[in-house]
Order: sequence, then C-alpha cells, then structure tokens
Amino acid sequence: MEQNPTIRFGVIGCADIARKVSRAISLAPNASLAAVGSRSLDKAKRFAEGNGFPAAAKVYGSYDGVLDDPDIDAVYVPLPTSLHVRWAVVAAQKKKHVLLEKPVALNASEFDEIIAACESNGVQLMDGTMWMHHPRTAVMKDFVSDAHRFGHLKSIHTCFTFGADADFLKNDIRVKPDLDALGSLGDEGWYCVRGILWAANYELPKSVIASREPVLNEAGVIMAVGASLHWEDGKVATFYCSFLSNLTMDITAIGTKGTLHDRDFIIPHQEKEASFYASSESGFDDLVTKWASQPSKHTINTDLPQEALMVREFARLVAEIKFNNSKPEKKWPTISRKTQLILDAVKASIDKGFEPVHIQE
Amino acid sequence: MEQNPTIRFGVIGCADIARKVSRAISLAPNASLAAVGSRSLDKAKRFAEGNGFPAAAKVYGSYDGVLDDPDIDAVYVPLPTSLHVRWAVVAAQKKKHVLLEKPVALNASEFDEIIAACESNGVQLMDGTMWMHHPRTAVMKDFVSDAHRFGHLKSIHTCFTFGADADFLKNDIRVKPDLDALGSLGDEGWYCVRGILWAANYELPKSVIASREPVLNEAGVIMAVGASLHWEDGKVATFYCSFLSNLTMDITAIGTKGTLHDRDFIIPHQEKEASFYASSESGFDDLVTKWASQPSKHTINTDLPQEALMVREFARLVAEIKFNNSKPEKKWPTISRKTQLILDAVKASIDKGFEPVHIQE
Repeated sequence: MEQNPTIRFGVIGCADIARKVSRAISLAPNASLAAVGSRSLDKAKRFAEGNGFPAAAKVYGSYDGVLDDPDIDAVYVPLPTSLHVRWAVVAAQKKKHVLLEKPVALNASEFDEIIAACESNGVQLMDGTMWMHHPRTAVMKDFVSDAHRFGHLKSIHTCFTFGADADFLKNDIRVKPDLDALGSLGDEGWYCVRGILWAANYELPKSVIASREPVLNEAGVIMAVGASLHWEDGKVATFYCSFLSNLTMDITAIGTKGTLHDRDFIIPHQEKEASFYASSESGFDDLVTKWASQPSKHTINTDLPQEALMVREFARLVAEIKFNNSKPEKKWPTISRKTQLILDAVKASIDKGFEPVHIQE
Repeated sequence: MEQNPTIRFGVIGCADIARKVSRAISLAPNASLAAVGSRSLDKAKRFAEGNGFPAAAKVYGSYDGVLDDPDIDAVYVPLPTSLHVRWAVVAAQKKKHVLLEKPVALNASEFDEIIAACESNGVQLMDGTMWMHHPRTAVMKDFVSDAHRFGHLKSIHTCFTFGADADFLKNDIRVKPDLDALGSLGDEGWYCVRGILWAANYELPKSVIASREPVLNEAGVIMAVGASLHWEDGKVATFYCSFLSNLTMDITAIGTKGTLHDRDFIIPHQEKEASFYASSESGFDDLVTKWASQPSKHTINTDLPQEALMVREFARLVAEIKFNNSKPEKKWPTISRKTQLILDAVKASIDKGFEPVHIQE
C-alpha cells in the first residue's frame, strides 16, 4: 500500500452534524476535506469557510458536483433520511465510498438498495454511529464477552433522551414525516437499538414489541417510544427514547456473572477520556447490609475523538480497497441493516397495536 | 411524651433477614430486642444467642408466646409471605404494632385484612423496605420533586437482579409456590415497583403490562420478569427483576429538566455513606462532541444504617401512639398497599397473556 494514503472526502449537504464530521475528517490522519456540495453554492461556501476546509477544497452548488468530481474518493452523507436511498445509490454508482448518517434509510428495504449499489460498485459503506469507534467500546466489549467476568448476557436496557427546544420540535428534520419519518425512534432509538445489538453480539432477537402509547406529534412522527426485544434463549432488552426529556444516555448490560454500566455511551462526557463501570460476581456481606465489593470504574483515554476514529477506520478501509485491491468490509453494512430491521419492527409493532413482530433477517 | 421511650420488639421467626433486622433493633436508639419466638425453642435460643439479644430477652418456642407477652410492644414479622395475613392479623388483635417483611402479602386483598386488623386495633403497620429510610432517599426525593432542577417526571427504569445459587434456587422460600408465591416479582420486584412509585410520588399508574416470557421454575414461580407501567399523563416506567443475573440494583428517573441515577438504591454499597448522580438541563457543546456539563455526584453520610433508621422511625411512631395517644401513621400501609397492587397487576397481566391490566385503587 502507498505510504500514508489520504482519502479525499466530499461532504454532500450542510446539516449541523456535518460540522462535527467535517472536523473529524480534518482530525483523522488518513483523511482530508476535499469538497462540499449544497443545493446553494453560497451555503456551501459559507460551510467550507466555517468548518476548516483547506483553500484547495472545492465548493459545489449541487450534490452532483461532488459526486462527479474524479478527485473525490468518498462522500459523507448527512442528508435527511428520506434522501439517503437516492443519493447513496448515486454516490455508489459514481464509485464514491459512502459514509452515511443514521438512520441509514427509511426502512430496511430501502437500505437493501443502498447495500446492493455499494456491493455492485465495490465501494465501502459505513454508517455514522460514532461510539462504535471509541476505544472504550472495545474495552467494554471485552468485558461483556468474558465468560468469567460477565458470564452469559441476560438483559440489556438502553435509553437516549434529550430535551428538544421549541424550535427543534417545530422545525427540525427529525420531526417531519417527509424527512426523518421515524422521529425519535430513527434518531435516538437508532443508538438504543445499536447498543442492545452490540451487547448481544449482533444476534437478532426473535421478536420486538413496542411499548404502548408512544408520544406522536401532530404529523404522527414519534417523539417518544420504548420497546422490548426478546431472544430465543430468553435474553430480553428494553429501550426508551424521547425528544421530551433531559439528556440521558445509558446502557446497562447484565450477565449471569457481571454487570456493565455506562452513562455516556453515545457521546462521552469528555472528548479525551471516557469511563464505564463493571462489576463481577457481586454480592453482599454476611448480614446483607452492604456490598462485598463495589463496581470498578474503568477510564479509557483517546487522543482523537470518536468521530475522528470513525473517519479514520472508514478511510482505512477505503484505502485498502483503493490501494490494495481489498474487498469492502461487510461488517459495517451488516450491523447497520440489523439496526434498521429492529427500528422497522418497532414501527410495525406500533402499527399492529403493540403486538410482537417477528424478526426475519 | 416519656423521655427516651424505648419500644420493646419481639421477633417472630428466625429467617436470615431477621438477623439483619435484629441488629438494626439493637442499633436503633429507641428500640430494644425483648423476645424472639420460633416453632422450635432451640432455634429461638440459638437465634437469640447469635444475634445480640440481651440476657433479659425472652425466648419462646412459638410465635404465640411472643404475641401473648404483655411486655412486648411491637413485632417484627420475617415469616414467609403466605403466613403474613395470619400472623400479622393475630399480632394486631393482640395489640402488637407490626413491622412486616415485604412483600406484605400474597395479594392486596390479603393485605387489606392486615390493614383492617391494624386499624381496628390502633396499631402501627409498616413494611420492611429499608431504603425508604436512608437519608439519601430524602435528598434524592428533593431532587426529583424540584421543578427547576428536575422538571416533570417522564420516565423511570428500575432493576433488581441477583445471581441466586443452586441451593437458593432449590430450597429458598422465594422459589416455593406455597411460601412466597410471587418469587422474584414479590421479592426483587417489590423494590423495583416501590422505586417507581416513589419517583412518581405514589401516583398509581392507570395500567400495567407484564413483559412476555417471564422465566418460571418447575413449580411455576417467577424467576425473572419485567413489566411496564403507564400513567394517564404519559409517564412510563419499566422494571426488570431476576434471580438469574449478577447483583444489580438501579433506578433511573428522567424528567423534562433533570436525570437521577442511583446504582445501589436498595442496599447501599457501604453502610455509612451512599451516593447518587444528578444532572440538570444537560446538553452538549456547540459541535456536539462532548457534554456541556457532567452529572454531579452527591454523597450522603449516615451514622446508622438504613435498617436501623427504619426501626427508629417505626419505633418513633409506636412511641407516639403508646405515650402520646397519637393515631397510627397511614402513609406506610398506604404505600405498601400501592406496591402490592402493582405486583398483583403484573401477575394478572401474565395470567391474561400480557394484556394491560387496569389499576383500581
């Protein structure tokens, strides 16, 4: 492979989240900000100026401009979910590798079109779930995979809520049925479901049941919802997501022998370090007046924030393909699809009056 | 009132939990260990010797011996749940104040018999939910009641699990249909439900739905189960309890403006201090790469362990009645009954195929 290959990124769309990911592309050692496209050239110019794009970066008044630029290796797609299938497929057809914001599509069937386009064009596909790439996540994974310290997974609970302000609740794309139709479920629920699948080693549950009485806005978009997931072996998981509560992001995984607690698993409290709590074979003292041992706190440091590590991993895979004739890594679209399948099932369970929905891969 | 009135306790039954509560009676400044009764006089003697009973304490080979002793003010009842209604009613009829282990009865209807007996005999009734009496609980209550720091309660999740050993799973009263018929639900679920009601200011939900596929033992007793609770105003709660997972006890309450996390709410990690985490109006930095502020840790010290504070409060109420002609405090049996009502509803929901069960006070 070429020494220090740099993957040139184009950004299509200037959503708020693109600011964070543009910075991440700047920070990643194997990536560069090479272009930005918006339906408005002015907006693209302002975005490039405000987000550290180098002077040589190109600025386009369309998404096609970026996709047709032969100097661009990969695109980051922060567009509203309803536009993902269209633009991700076009990007793949134009041989651009695709870093796609979550939720990846309006439903798994749409996402299958994206997967097919990426596979037939030999490009890498990865979704923008940043916490997957934090080194803490790998350390936590070691813990929940450890038969001695954690045992067999029995239950998981995740939640992600934040208190959206009046402007968000009126104008954000995540409250619009024609843009991000799944609302809180697609946005926050994506992370809750991913956390559950992650803890369950990506084994799909056999059924999913939405909790009764999700909160919907006037347009019918989900503002708050919960659900339970049930596996063949008796494992259970629950999650809760909401635009209407204080910012909270928890994952608790309980095994036969151990317990994992993390209170900032999606976005760490701090950029350079992140913690979690682990306990193993916990018990009480003789009189059951206190615990025999306390959960231990584990802190993991990182030089790069998780979003830059995500870009670095994506760019590494792209470089393997570009310079080393490797095949695209299927792990990432596979777990994206599983996540989307569960979101679809929660929505279907709501539509079916909160009946269990069987999951078929 | 008499100076430093001491309430004389009799213990009926020598269950393991009676060891902890006997110590608590010794520690409480207004209580004394005055008698113990068991069906076996030998067992009662050994219990008294092994648990700090003073030499003057009486030892009986029956529960009736304690209940008929005119020197006894109050009894602690650690008997299996199926025996509660019988012995709590007899105790009340004999004018003994009743500190009753949880779950308080096999169902709310049985508990109503106990309440009626205590009311008509003018004796205090309180259940043995120790964490209600920890000073941390009051500080946490201040937080979740604070409209500025916490806002309106939107969701609650509690869990209590522990990994029962083979002996427990075969022999403990909590796995026997004729002793503690509700199993994990009655034992651990009691705390989960109490935590939820506590956070909801004891407002009953309108409906309760058991999660599908509870784990039952061969005798049909619940080993693991979850449920969701739904209120008129849209509040939701979930809980999970299990005898088959590592020791874990969480309460997370999320309001419109604040979040409460406590990871040892039922039995604190340590006897003399206990912590919780609170966050208010949490948010991210401008680029959503980290939190603008972190949850704050609050640590509360206590000279007496929570079980001794429970005994102290119970004895204080008994002394008010005995020496000051006060009426029994109804708050305690009222919240016991609400807790039992929810347990009953979870069981009914299981029996009805996981349909919602409407709660009627």
